[in-house]
Amino acid sequence: MKTVSTSLSHDGVQGVYSHASETCNCEMTFAVFVPPQAKDGPCPVLWYLSGLTCTHQNVMDKGEYRRLAAELGLIVVCPDTSPRGEEVPDEKDNWQFGKGAGFYVDATQETFARNYQMYSYVTRELPALIEKKFPADMSRQGIFGHSMGGHGAMTIALKHPDRFKSCSAFAPIVQPSTAGWSKPALEKYLGTDQAAWRTYDACALVEDGARFPHFLIDQGTADSFLDEGLRPWLFEEAAKDTGIALTLNMREGYDHSYFFISTFMDDHLRWHAERLT
Amino acid sequence: MKTVSTSLSHDGVQGVYSHASETCNCEMTFAVFVPPQAKDGPCPVLWYLSGLTCTHQNVMDKGEYRRLAAELGLIVVCPDTSPRGEEVPDEKDNWQFGKGAGFYVDATQETFARNYQMYSYVTRELPALIEKKFPADMSRQGIFGHSMGGHGAMTIALKHPDRFKSCSAFAPIVQPSTAGWSKPALEKYLGTDQAAWRTYDACALVEDGARFPHFLIDQGTADSFLDEGLRPWLFEEAAKDTGIALTLNMREGYDHSYFFISTFMDDHLRWHAERLT
Repeated sequence: MKTVSTSLSHDGVQGVYSHASETCNCEMTFAVFVPPQAKDGPCPVLWYLSGLTCTHQNVMDKGEYRRLAAELGLIVVCPDTSPRGEEVPDEKDNWQFGKGAGFYVDATQETFARNYQMYSYVTRELPALIEKKFPADMSRQGIFGHSMGGHGAMTIALKHPDRFKSCSAFAPIVQPSTAGWSKPALEKYLGTDQAAWRTYDACALVEDGARFPHFLIDQGTADSFLDEGLRPWLFEEAAKDTGIALTLNMREGYDHSYFFISTFMDDHLRWHAERLT
Repeated sequence: MKTVSTSLSHDGVQGVYSHASETCNCEMTFAVFVPPQAKDGPCPVLWYLSGLTCTHQNVMDKGEYRRLAAELGLIVVCPDTSPRGEEVPDEKDNWQFGKGAGFYVDATQETFARNYQMYSYVTRELPALIEKKFPADMSRQGIFGHSMGGHGAMTIALKHPDRFKSCSAFAPIVQPSTAGWSKPALEKYLGTDQAAWRTYDACALVEDGARFPHFLIDQGTADSFLDEGLRPWLFEEAAKDTGIALTLNMREGYDHSYFFISTFMDDHLRWHAERLT
């Protein structure tokens, strides 16, 4: 692991690191904020998965998580959203597929399978690295994310209810199998047999029996992707009568941007801290 | 004035606007955050001047001022740092001069005088526009900034002690006349006669009799520009026995980045709010 940069922030350290990923077969970059409490012992780990077009950097710059994470004693890990590098296949003019759009799946189709293994990267390779290199208490992990990253957080939590004590999402894609901006990507990564898509779809996972105790979702009503791409009511419907609790906050007038995310960041950090600390 | 974008944030509105500047002879863009309290009446105005290489956008994205500005009821105005556009003369490979490096002066030298009028832009043209278009109480104004923008804030406050009730700075260039990264710019904008530089130099202004009641400065000790470019002790020395109070906080281990700015943003906002509200 290489240290790209570190800066003191709110008495903790915001770092950027890179490593040769065996899972994605390329150099991967990620951001980690370590709070001041880490001087006294391992801290809980909160995973933030970003949305389409983002790298590790967008939420690090614009998410406004450090002040309260430093107060609450949370390590915040922000992975990239796809494999990177010139060797990695891409569709340059398509922001909904390829680089910046890994959708947190393990691709099975050529030519993407070699690099687009973001599910395994985020759930196996990177956690092992975090455990090894940072003062992380891996028995206390939470996960959240935005849009495509909200989809990532919810599907990963549903598949690992024992690993994660908390999950939340900002404007998540709750049913990527049927949304216009994700369906073509799932087809290209996973093939035309939609049975293979179901383990990467929060609504389908719940229909197929996956469970997680409680989700927090914040969603802006002025989000231009709400009706076509996000549709949190589909997850509300899927979760009904399953024992899964859902706190869904529709936020009047908020859009899909980091101005929305940062406004409700404190609420989400407190949600996780209540379950992790 | 054109509205480039608006987003709800912390129940206020973060907007980006542009207008044809008569002062800079080009289209200028700026950011304004209007807090929720503006629904009930005019709010105090806090000016944030940015550093080298920045536009209005950097602090809007990374400064983390909205949460507390919304709580304290402050309008925050973030101007650009220089004139812009293809017609504007520039030194493309020099980040310390030209675009992104207006140094808040009114250039007198050809070919820069036509556009590089950032002092007049920030102290006259833009305030008039803000007063006209926003719910701003212009009788309650404060000013702050970072690095080159800290220089801008301090020199402007020293020249307008009746207009501004508060001034603070993150890692300001307190004596640009003698610092390596600003001296060549002053020469190109203002000519070789250093007498003309003195009204754009906080230390020289104080030596020449300008006064302001109290400055707050935060400065990181790990700032790589500290010894060559910033040197707050020069202002401490200049202010001694003048009646100017200086609260200078040397912040152990902090660098020159927005990670530093955002860490101490709350302190600065409270400093201004105490004097403006």
